[in-house]
Amino acid sequence: VSGDIYPKLPLSLSEYEELAGSVLDKPAYDYYRSGANDEITLAENLQAYKRIQLYPRILVDVEKRDLTTTVLGQEISMPIMIAPTAFHKMACPSGEIATAQAAEKNQTLMVLSSLSTTTPEEVAASTSGPLWFQLYIYKDRDLTKRVIHRVEELGYKALCITVDAPLLGRRERDVRNTFSLPKGLTIATVGDYLEKAMAENAKNSSLNVYFTNLLDQSVTWRDVEWIRSISELPIILKGVHRTDDAIRAVEHGFDGIVVSNHGGRQLDTVPATINLLPSISDAVNGRLEIFLDGGIRRGTDVIKALALGARAVLIGRPILWGLAVGGYEGASAVLRLIRDETDLAMALCGISNVSEATKDLIGYRTA
Amino acid sequence: VSGDIYPKLPLSLSEYEELAGSVLDKPAYDYYRSGANDEITLAENLQAYKRIQLYPRILVDVEKRDLTTTVLGQEISMPIMIAPTAFHKMACPSGEIATAQAAEKNQTLMVLSSLSTTTPEEVAASTSGPLWFQLYIYKDRDLTKRVIHRVEELGYKALCITVDAPLLGRRERDVRNTFSLPKGLTIATVGDYLEKAMAENAKNSSLNVYFTNLLDQSVTWRDVEWIRSISELPIILKGVHRTDDAIRAVEHGFDGIVVSNHGGRQLDTVPATINLLPSISDAVNGRLEIFLDGGIRRGTDVIKALALGARAVLIGRPILWGLAVGGYEGASAVLRLIRDETDLAMALCGISNVSEATKDLIGYRTA
Amino acid sequence: VSGDIYPKLPLSLSEYEELAGSVLDKPAYDYYRSGANDEITLAENLQAYKRIQLYPRILVDVEKRDLTTTVLGQEISMPIMIAPTAFHKMACPSGEIATAQAAEKNQTLMVLSSLSTTTPEEVAASTSGPLWFQLYIYKDRDLTKRVIHRVEELGYKALCITVDAPLLGRRERDVRNTFSLPKGLTIATVGDYLEKAMAENAKNSSLNVYFTNLLDQSVTWRDVEWIRSISELPIILKGVHRTDDAIRAVEHGFDGIVVSNHGGRQLDTVPATINLLPSISDAVNGRLEIFLDGGIRRGTDVIKALALGARAVLIGRPILWGLAVGGYEGASAVLRLIRDETDLAMALCGISNVSEATKDLIGYRTA
Amino acid sequence: VSGDIYPKLPLSLSEYEELAGSVLDKPAYDYYRSGANDEITLAENLQAYKRIQLYPRILVDVEKRDLTTTVLGQEISMPIMIAPTAFHKMACPSGEIATAQAAEKNQTLMVLSSLSTTTPEEVAASTSGPLWFQLYIYKDRDLTKRVIHRVEELGYKALCITVDAPLLGRRERDVRNTFSLPKGLTIATVGDYLEKAMAENAKNSSLNVYFTNLLDQSVTWRDVEWIRSISELPIILKGVHRTDDAIRAVEHGFDGIVVSNHGGRQLDTVPATINLLPSISDAVNGRLEIFLDGGIRRGTDVIKALALGARAVLIGRPILWGLAVGGYEGASAVLRLIRDETDLAMALCGISNVSEATKDLIGYRTA
Repeated sequence: VSGDIYPKLPLSLSEYEELAGSVLDKPAYDYYRSGANDEITLAENLQAYKRIQLYPRILVDVEKRDLTTTVLGQEISMPIMIAPTAFHKMACPSGEIATAQAAEKNQTLMVLSSLSTTTPEEVAASTSGPLWFQLYIYKDRDLTKRVIHRVEELGYKALCITVDAPLLGRRERDVRNTFSLPKGLTIATVGDYLEKAMAENAKNSSLNVYFTNLLDQSVTWRDVEWIRSISELPIILKGVHRTDDAIRAVEHGFDGIVVSNHGGRQLDTVPATINLLPSISDAVNGRLEIFLDGGIRRGTDVIKALALGARAVLIGRPILWGLAVGGYEGASAVLRLIRDETDLAMALCGISNVSEATKDLIGYRTA
Repeated sequence: VSGDIYPKLPLSLSEYEELAGSVLDKPAYDYYRSGANDEITLAENLQAYKRIQLYPRILVDVEKRDLTTTVLGQEISMPIMIAPTAFHKMACPSGEIATAQAAEKNQTLMVLSSLSTTTPEEVAASTSGPLWFQLYIYKDRDLTKRVIHRVEELGYKALCITVDAPLLGRRERDVRNTFSLPKGLTIATVGDYLEKAMAENAKNSSLNVYFTNLLDQSVTWRDVEWIRSISELPIILKGVHRTDDAIRAVEHGFDGIVVSNHGGRQLDTVPATINLLPSISDAVNGRLEIFLDGGIRRGTDVIKALALGARAVLIGRPILWGLAVGGYEGASAVLRLIRDETDLAMALCGISNVSEATKDLIGYRTA
Repeated sequence: VSGDIYPKLPLSLSEYEELAGSVLDKPAYDYYRSGANDEITLAENLQAYKRIQLYPRILVDVEKRDLTTTVLGQEISMPIMIAPTAFHKMACPSGEIATAQAAEKNQTLMVLSSLSTTTPEEVAASTSGPLWFQLYIYKDRDLTKRVIHRVEELGYKALCITVDAPLLGRRERDVRNTFSLPKGLTIATVGDYLEKAMAENAKNSSLNVYFTNLLDQSVTWRDVEWIRSISELPIILKGVHRTDDAIRAVEHGFDGIVVSNHGGRQLDTVPATINLLPSISDAVNGRLEIFLDGGIRRGTDVIKALALGARAVLIGRPILWGLAVGGYEGASAVLRLIRDETDLAMALCGISNVSEATKDLIGYRTA
Repeated sequence: VSGDIYPKLPLSLSEYEELAGSVLDKPAYDYYRSGANDEITLAENLQAYKRIQLYPRILVDVEKRDLTTTVLGQEISMPIMIAPTAFHKMACPSGEIATAQAAEKNQTLMVLSSLSTTTPEEVAASTSGPLWFQLYIYKDRDLTKRVIHRVEELGYKALCITVDAPLLGRRERDVRNTFSLPKGLTIATVGDYLEKAMAENAKNSSLNVYFTNLLDQSVTWRDVEWIRSISELPIILKGVHRTDDAIRAVEHGFDGIVVSNHGGRQLDTVPATINLLPSISDAVNGRLEIFLDGGIRRGTDVIKALALGARAVLIGRPILWGLAVGGYEGASAVLRLIRDETDLAMALCGISNVSEATKDLIGYRTA
């Protein structure tokens, strides 16, 4: 993003956050930015990248850089996708449609959240770009099945099942703000269902009802196997922290995992995802595709994740900051900025395509 | 503690401390919060938990979580007890009785301090919940014996002998404040005895007299053996730091130890208790029960202590902040808050009862 | 620099920076001081020296200290040279001529930047001291060749080829300032060539044109070999980070390398140069001369670099601060100050000539 | 020091420093407190103790603690001596005499500095306590010999030869303040000699003349052997940093060493002395007595130094703060405070005499 084109726009993803903070309502901004409890993991997700050092190669022809890659066979123009995040209409009126179109413009893939404020139908209709769907497994398995079959028919290309949220992490800013969805917004995918549930349980907000009444805390490996049995879509487990769980995902034949801690919003004091990646990557040894989210704010962060074993990364909050700052244009600019940074980082690392990002580029600051 | 029930109450134990600081007199607040000398251990007790990382399991059925455990055979509803702390009447008029009733309400156990401002008799009469008694060994062994037999008869279920305080640690805030017990409050257990001693030694406050005149600096393993010989109660040694001392406690046949540094109030620059726990737990190898206090402020801290070998933890200062903020209600709310946090942390760790908190959940941040 | 001679002058290189910040225009100061992106490497270059500890020898005769050394056979009075930096006329009117004369006065060597605001001819005419020339390889190889032959004929004694800048690192301060060369200043070495290119490409500043149009992103080891084939001058590769690249430089028969990260201005989050030095020095094992720049601010820093394998160090920004503060006098004072500090550090380390700076002087602070 | 006796006095050595800073002239305060260059070693000397952790023993009879020890056969009442520091009359009018009497009152030993503002004769006359003399080796060996023989005859019991100051470290605060000895004060030991030298060299202050003209930068092991040949006194080398130099001190038959970095005033970025101690102690293995100075501010620091191999420690600046705050009374109070802290630390560590301070008491905080 050069000064010529967006003279007033932020120069980095963290400047987008700053600007977003000045345009969003406090409860919305807090909802987006907050982490669980003391926000230790939230901070660590970012901090960890500052302790990882790059060892660039010299005298390599980097005139032409190729950032394209494939994720589960889908070609995308860069190893950066849009992570599923909730409630895009809180950031701008066109909400998830703006996001989907920003993804399409930048030739990458959006993972639509189950907590979108736009229906999967509307999002699918707004873009010809590839979409994945982030899924929660509901207590009501018929509802779960109906959602899956809807997104399947709409052409979503994979299911990304969140496995780190049997209960909602406690974000004290939201409790303090008594956060609830602004008037007029709904959790669109299950809107009708929720309205009925809320009517039965009048004093609770839709978000409380969603998590307390809909989500199933008893989900096990058997249940995700059941999902596979009822859907042709590739399945990715999002929220893997442990090597043993990554191996189980391989053994159960899943297609991918997202090394994720839900942006530091679930269990506080879990490690930064980037620090979990190397041992998970070693254990998986190429048997499924590994994605990563959490703390990616720079092109150099992308390179580090690739070098340590991620096939691609996902960015969540920065997209929301882009939406808040400038809707579709803002989200597009964020994607373009992180792509430009990644392109430059590749050149300066002495690599000309993403497969050349290997472990020898990486070191750790010890003090 | 939901926003509905206590709309104005703190959302975390550290917010309780903040609020307590605004309602307590400075000398009282300082007495409670201070640590020895430079307060390095005081800070480290808290800081250490931030460097310990959790590795949660996924896809585990956590719909029903069971927090109950037993301590020396006593069932309690959660692995969190009330540590012995002094002078609860400085925090609220009903003092230790409020505390005991908060413990009972939350179905856990209170360890009554020898420095209580309420007699063991009054505390025992106020609750049907289980009580332990924290004991100092006095120079006057008859006095010591009388205290033991009193609490034995009152139904206290164990003696918790403090072994890290042959002398009182130097807390400079108290020296600066020339701290003494507020008028009307006494060290109730030995009130008569002290009055006599103070009369003989007119210029000293009861606290100085207590420590200088009553406490015995020559106590050794032989003396704690003597305690055992005169009491049927199980005995726990509180203030163990070293592996060799833990092994000696096993060899001498004691029932439990508390890995404790007296909340950072005795010898400054001793390690955080949570960092002492793993090697002590390995050495003890189940031959006695290990408890831990010092720095527990979050449900995740409780899980970390359990995973590293504690059977249960004790919280001290947070109870005082609860008492200061709202007496019995405040102390109850503190206990409920830390229980709720522990319950949520269990769910998000993928464990459904306390025995599943094992070492593989734990890692250490290295930088 | 004693208080007697320069009563108002700074006492340390960092005080020079502070004073320079108050006399330079913000865009110029920012251009000089900034690093890429989050400026993590910029800070780390300095910070790393604070974690390296010296172990001085006692009872050594240090009455006479000898700071002289040779670099590629050239004797200089101290193991400290002037690093190539751009645009000295932004700091003071006499620009690179002031710098060259400060180098001569202090009997050391200046490496003239390709981005000088003074022609190589003018600089060569202004000094009888030794000069090296920092070279970029241009897309236009004829231009490259012409520049090489010009400096060869002018008596420059070595070519220092920058290998860490296929593209310009992104310094956000410059983007924010929309930095361009002040009116009247030009990139003197290729001034005519640039004017033509700028005429064709009217809306871009000379700096953008320089990097985008002139610099070749496809340069490989073959191209630096080509440079060697067309010049008799010794060749040094500047911008080496990796041990394998250092070994390749040896194998290709180059004369020296500069362990450099371009002052933290290219790829952010690369390690501090001083931390790269030990393993590179071990790998090279004396087969070429190793120089180092980045973060040298104290005489003790110089000793550390020598002890860890550098033959000499280069300082960049401090020279600019000297120029800004006092032109030729300021740059001279900076050189004299760092020399005096190095001399004193030698005495206090118990070494009397630079070859005695060996690895046993060095330790690392671990926490 | 209880609140009763000194109601207005500081409660810790660092509070003494604070108070001294408010009563001393800035140049004097700066002279005392400053370290070389960036004051990294100055800070590290203190910081290092905060990373060293104590592992106290429990259930040890500590009713009677014995702090006495011997240094080179001299009994002192505690393992804490007074380090040689310059210019005590800048802190209070009675200068080194106040210090000597404070030492005597606390039954410990003072090492008189060569840079005292009181003659060795006056100091010796003022006290019946034991004295050592800190010696610089002058270019003029006759002067050196005369000084040695004077202090020998005066009953000083050892020579403590400073070996880390062939030149004076650069303390920028002093340069900024153009520090010189206040009018009326002289470097008393060599007063006449200096006056003559200053007359010949009119524009320099006595301190500059002292270091430039008197001190010999060519001193080697041969010269300290010469000292031994001309004196019966035991000889201690002060300023040892390296294991090899400590071993050489053993091999040359010296009586003791002081692990010292001159309070961070000589070569900046040398390690904290306490971190040098363990390997030096291992190497020396009891063959000479090891003392330590630098950063001792707490009783726990004393215990750590003893446990890691020091026979006794020396404190420097805190004595000056005591002198500044209250002359003889202040210096006495400082000694009594650090003794009381050491006594309490012993009790809380579970040791009852200094020889029980062993390595198993020590651990290191890793992050």
